[in-house]
Amino acid sequence: MADSKPRKIGVGLLGFGTIGTGVVKVLQENADVISQRLGFPLELVRIADLDLETDRGVNLDGVRFDADASALIADPEVDIVVELIGGYDVARRFILESIAADKHVVSANKALLALHGKEIFKAARAANLDVGFEAAVAGGIPILRSLREGLAANHIERVLGILNGTTNYVLTEMERTEEAFEIVLKRAQELGYAEADPTFDVEGVDAAHKLALLVGMAFGAELTYEDIPTQGILQMTPLDFELAAEFGFRIKLLGIAKCHSDEHGHEAIEAHVGPAMVPVRSLLANVDGAMNAVEVKGDAVGPTLYYGAGAGEMPTASAVVADLMEIAREIQRGGAGAVAPLSYLPEEIKPKPMVSADRIVHRAYLRFSALDEPGVLSKITGVLGEFGVGIESVIQRQTEMDHGRVPVIVLTHPATEEALRSAMKKIDSLECVGGPSVEIRIEEEI
Amino acid sequence: MADSKPRKIGVGLLGFGTIGTGVVKVLQENADVISQRLGFPLELVRIADLDLETDRGVNLDGVRFDADASALIADPEVDIVVELIGGYDVARRFILESIAADKHVVSANKALLALHGKEIFKAARAANLDVGFEAAVAGGIPILRSLREGLAANHIERVLGILNGTTNYVLTEMERTEEAFEIVLKRAQELGYAEADPTFDVEGVDAAHKLALLVGMAFGAELTYEDIPTQGILQMTPLDFELAAEFGFRIKLLGIAKCHSDEHGHEAIEAHVGPAMVPVRSLLANVDGAMNAVEVKGDAVGPTLYYGAGAGEMPTASAVVADLMEIAREIQRGGAGAVAPLSYLPEEIKPKPMVSADRIVHRAYLRFSALDEPGVLSKITGVLGEFGVGIESVIQRQTEMDHGRVPVIVLTHPATEEALRSAMKKIDSLECVGGPSVEIRIEEEI
Repeated sequence: MADSKPRKIGVGLLGFGTIGTGVVKVLQENADVISQRLGFPLELVRIADLDLETDRGVNLDGVRFDADASALIADPEVDIVVELIGGYDVARRFILESIAADKHVVSANKALLALHGKEIFKAARAANLDVGFEAAVAGGIPILRSLREGLAANHIERVLGILNGTTNYVLTEMERTEEAFEIVLKRAQELGYAEADPTFDVEGVDAAHKLALLVGMAFGAELTYEDIPTQGILQMTPLDFELAAEFGFRIKLLGIAKCHSDEHGHEAIEAHVGPAMVPVRSLLANVDGAMNAVEVKGDAVGPTLYYGAGAGEMPTASAVVADLMEIAREIQRGGAGAVAPLSYLPEEIKPKPMVSADRIVHRAYLRFSALDEPGVLSKITGVLGEFGVGIESVIQRQTEMDHGRVPVIVLTHPATEEALRSAMKKIDSLECVGGPSVEIRIEEEI
Repeated sequence: MADSKPRKIGVGLLGFGTIGTGVVKVLQENADVISQRLGFPLELVRIADLDLETDRGVNLDGVRFDADASALIADPEVDIVVELIGGYDVARRFILESIAADKHVVSANKALLALHGKEIFKAARAANLDVGFEAAVAGGIPILRSLREGLAANHIERVLGILNGTTNYVLTEMERTEEAFEIVLKRAQELGYAEADPTFDVEGVDAAHKLALLVGMAFGAELTYEDIPTQGILQMTPLDFELAAEFGFRIKLLGIAKCHSDEHGHEAIEAHVGPAMVPVRSLLANVDGAMNAVEVKGDAVGPTLYYGAGAGEMPTASAVVADLMEIAREIQRGGAGAVAPLSYLPEEIKPKPMVSADRIVHRAYLRFSALDEPGVLSKITGVLGEFGVGIESVIQRQTEMDHGRVPVIVLTHPATEEALRSAMKKIDSLECVGGPSVEIRIEEEI
């Protein structure tokens, strides 16, 4: 407990869109439970946003609301600045300005932290200030706290999961309706599950941002999202879902990161975002719609999994306010920086090499678009054999002929990522194959 | 970060059985990552156990090991005492002795905390000391931290889950093998999944201990495990699993707690341990073997779920050492009691009434043992109708006749718990029925 009587802790909100409105609602509607847990109230002092007109449906009595972000940051009544602007440049500037003004920061901005996290955490540490960002990964799921504290006694061996609600919604619907990607995406946009420009989501970039943050916390590895090979869900077809079910799998867009140790104890990181097939009875396979789930395996604890809403007004606000409560406690106690933001002390976070493709081994589902002519199958399987890729089964779907091409599907035995890539490259160059071919990794040990 | 150079934090271990050995292994094998996250080491100073002979397979160089618990507690080099003795009286005495000696405490003893938690937390608070007990509920899963911090901004609406690994293992095996309870339990004992005396597990007492702790943290309600109606898994038969599958469900032993608010905002608690049917595609239905999972629904975050090993040497040790790390950080910072152990400040935790049985509504699977004579079915369904329990389907299994009795299964429409209980009581008193009948709650909104 605090030694002296707790003082009022003031919160300033930069950005008053969907999430900002959610934060106001949680602070107001749950003020009772927040005080009952903290022992003092959190007070929303001030909001800054360029849009002063839209009615957000919340009562702002006693809250100063204008378009002046810098005045908010400088306001002596504001102890913690919540950055919910999004994007890179302006958000980065305001966060650094807040730190310079001796304000703690809470942000839900995964894109910014995946790119400029190092700079921001360093500035905050130098000023003895906290940066909370639970809301940046998997929305309302307390996955960062779990990695940072609940599993802190473990060497983390892998972290993987469904990190993007939009793509999980689209994949779930494609499976359910057997419709094409474009049709399902359009409906998702109409229903508000996908944005007007869904590029960041469907190309896997958003998941890669989150995975980069998770990799830092799990393995103490410095990694930016550009290091992560990323594949989206644009190439998925109804046939893929049909065959996945036949083979006993479901298709999910996974962010996958593993820490490999060689015989000398040298660590290398595997990190990758892309569609994967997971066993139908696994928990991840049963995470449907816009929900997220993250699996973390530690050497002592074994596999654990965390599930919940990965986005949305109220779930994201739940995570933002949890950070506000933690930082407010620290302010009352006259401290900050109790727990390192990325779990490892900053000086322990080091660049670690990416693991080479010949050390990543898994089964795969490969789909080729082949000319409907004799000998094609033997050419494809011949190339796979040449690179040492064993075949478990081959399916040629004559009924799916399209412009004289038929899909050929190969389910492989375990093979290295290097062999798979090389074989696919050579197969794509065959005259009888109309590339690019599609690979879906089979992720079985979950 | 700490203001002064961190000092060494000493750990003393009371009880050197399976979990104690796990704690030693984690402290030794993961010393690197513990230091990289804390900025200083945790040092195992001393162990006390009556059994000084058994070889635990760990190196104890530099660790004092004897049978003198009181000397360990009094040792000035011990900052934190880890209680892993189990049971009530001795463990309680040692914990209170530790607090009196100004030592922080970590315990995995759910039975003790469910019974004497209030006394222990009060003593620790008065002495400005911390009590960590993450390992007491769901083993390695960081569920207590998630309730206390990650979801702290929420009114918690319900918390329910698979809280006992032994019973989940038995239920999973009964479903898989179609064998009787006694046969599967015997094999579970041989394989080490069940204890020689499995009473606490199979009768649901262990799950009720854990649920009592969860209820306190989730709803700020004072509740001991004796308040929780508890039903075990002894009455489950292969037929129940077969029919559950037919109806689209799987059977799990669930601890279920919900917070009901009436129109005046008065809160009442529903808490119950018993077998339940959950939809096959739900995450809880797919938690197999000895694993645990807890679902928490908050008003802002919506449904979330936490999955992992609920028991075992290393997973439990993972949780114990996470608590040690958190407390060690506090010691370095010269503080304690940052976060209230039961999430709500002690003065906010209040007795709340249990909700009355007429406000608990769910569908149910009922199994009666009926004489094979005309008119029985109409008598049973007649009584159900009399109490307003609607019937969705009725199955009479002639092939399962046993001593002249046949199982009659009724799947009900939603009904109050009160109506179900009253109807079953009256049906059990019919001459044509050989009681006691079996009720399995159908828990659909998960």
